[in-house]
Amino acid sequence: MQKIVVALGGNALQSGNGPATAEAQLEVVKKTCEHVAEMCKRGYELAVVHGNGPQVGRILLASETAKDVTPAMPFDVCGAMSQGYIGYHLQQALRFALKKRGKDVPVVTLATQVVVDKNDPGFKNPTKPIGPFYSQEEAKALVEEKGYTVKEDAGRGYRRVVASPIPQKIVEIDSVRKLWETTIVITCGGGGIPVVENEDGSLTGVAAVIDKDFAAELLAEEVEADALMILTEVEKVAINFNKPDQQDLAHMTYAEAEKYCQEGQFAPGSMLPKVQAAMKFVKANPDKKAIITSLDKSIDALEGKTGTVITFA
Amino acid sequence: MQKIVVALGGNALQSGNGPATAEAQLEVVKKTCEHVAEMCKRGYELAVVHGNGPQVGRILLASETAKDVTPAMPFDVCGAMSQGYIGYHLQQALRFALKKRGKDVPVVTLATQVVVDKNDPGFKNPTKPIGPFYSQEEAKALVEEKGYTVKEDAGRGYRRVVASPIPQKIVEIDSVRKLWETTIVITCGGGGIPVVENEDGSLTGVAAVIDKDFAAELLAEEVEADALMILTEVEKVAINFNKPDQQDLAHMTYAEAEKYCQEGQFAPGSMLPKVQAAMKFVKANPDKKAIITSLDKSIDALEGKTGTVITFA
Repeated sequence: MQKIVVALGGNALQSGNGPATAEAQLEVVKKTCEHVAEMCKRGYELAVVHGNGPQVGRILLASETAKDVTPAMPFDVCGAMSQGYIGYHLQQALRFALKKRGKDVPVVTLATQVVVDKNDPGFKNPTKPIGPFYSQEEAKALVEEKGYTVKEDAGRGYRRVVASPIPQKIVEIDSVRKLWETTIVITCGGGGIPVVENEDGSLTGVAAVIDKDFAAELLAEEVEADALMILTEVEKVAINFNKPDQQDLAHMTYAEAEKYCQEGQFAPGSMLPKVQAAMKFVKANPDKKAIITSLDKSIDALEGKTGTVITFA
Repeated sequence: MQKIVVALGGNALQSGNGPATAEAQLEVVKKTCEHVAEMCKRGYELAVVHGNGPQVGRILLASETAKDVTPAMPFDVCGAMSQGYIGYHLQQALRFALKKRGKDVPVVTLATQVVVDKNDPGFKNPTKPIGPFYSQEEAKALVEEKGYTVKEDAGRGYRRVVASPIPQKIVEIDSVRKLWETTIVITCGGGGIPVVENEDGSLTGVAAVIDKDFAAELLAEEVEADALMILTEVEKVAINFNKPDQQDLAHMTYAEAEKYCQEGQFAPGSMLPKVQAAMKFVKANPDKKAIITSLDKSIDALEGKTGTVITFA
């Protein structure tokens, strides 16, 4: 049986134009889970990783907005809360989508910490904006009082920025392995709760955002998955994207992908990390593959009919 | 090896007189986990259930306070977020407390749904106050717009009240069972995310509060634990509590406990549900025991030196 790690993008959780409510999210998640359940029905063994950008942003925003009424939450805790929130919706909807297909497969979400290197270069140059916009005065106060790094955001005010370090180790990987064969595990939500290892072996949460595609890649390596499947808004990765000579790619080797990356073909923070995660997986596993496609083409892509397949050679 | 389900009360997570911040919670949780790790070191197999009253209250309060900035979260989602938040702190701290004792035991939190009966009498007469205080006008609007039940709270304003139904089924019990022998599982946090079963077999989250001691009792039955251990602020259950003839109890049979309950010896919402959960466990398992004691006496109680032991006969 093929083992697949599936990374769900933002559009799998929330409609771009609907209201940003939990109720609306649940409706989108139900549709998403139809596709995931169908993969399971076709005989694939799955683990699910999901993004959390908009959700953790709103949790942080609510927490900071209400800070005079109840203390604001640190960002690592906001990440943990988003894992509970999104994981709950996914496990509830996926269980039912499986049941409808006669598959009585357990589904469970694990709160998951992911270790990052405290010397990761990302910490020296934080780039990931999180939370609300601040005035210049508010921003100045936060820098002085809380040690935040803030950056001006194109005339809309100031925002806190945090690092996006590379994931090094999934703390709860043992539990993922133990459940894997019988259970669909939802893990590394939002890329995982970022923690650093202290000298005494304890862990401390840090304010950072781990790219969920890199976390899914690490998970796929750790569980020795046969394929890493990254689901996004497009059916295939393209070069010359949005230009007259746009070319959709059915296949890329590692070397081709590297060349396209060097040419700047893929947008940073969007397609680039997906391609990079796929490259990392096939470099570590030259006999395996990564697939980038859209949610509604996921079955076709698994059957080799569409999507962009990345292999080492 | 003895299997124990440990239910942690509010004081295991948060100091009564410290600030209500996540940072302060983490410090209390670290101390709590020293005791839990010590139990593990003595050779007991553990699962951990925790309360979430103050935490979910603050999550809901932040969410409602910020509702004009970002949509407020439904109460079931607030519960899921509290499982992520508290579980993350517990698993981080417990892992290190075990490591210090040379025990490399995995610890993981499961997002856990608990099924309640939609015809539970609790839904007809909701009693559990949640969230902020409202003015009479605000309360009236919430009743009309959202169908909330509100009650006046002793001159301090109006509060929403929800049901406290009896837990019927732990949805993710399979995963708990699969992990149990090798891993300390944190599950049913806050009593579990309350869901009702629809006719088609799907689950829907509901606004309710499941008593965490009853959830721990159900878990203990389901995993066939040898003992249910409920940790609270007092070393022993007492009758004639806070009176000149207060009597601390080293042992109660089911029949004695039933008599004390009928006499009104135990405070509703406080000691009463703990005693009731203990009674339920020993009634279902007449050869097993429940223990009610304080966190810092947990080891002594497991060794039979203190605490209140409840047995069927």
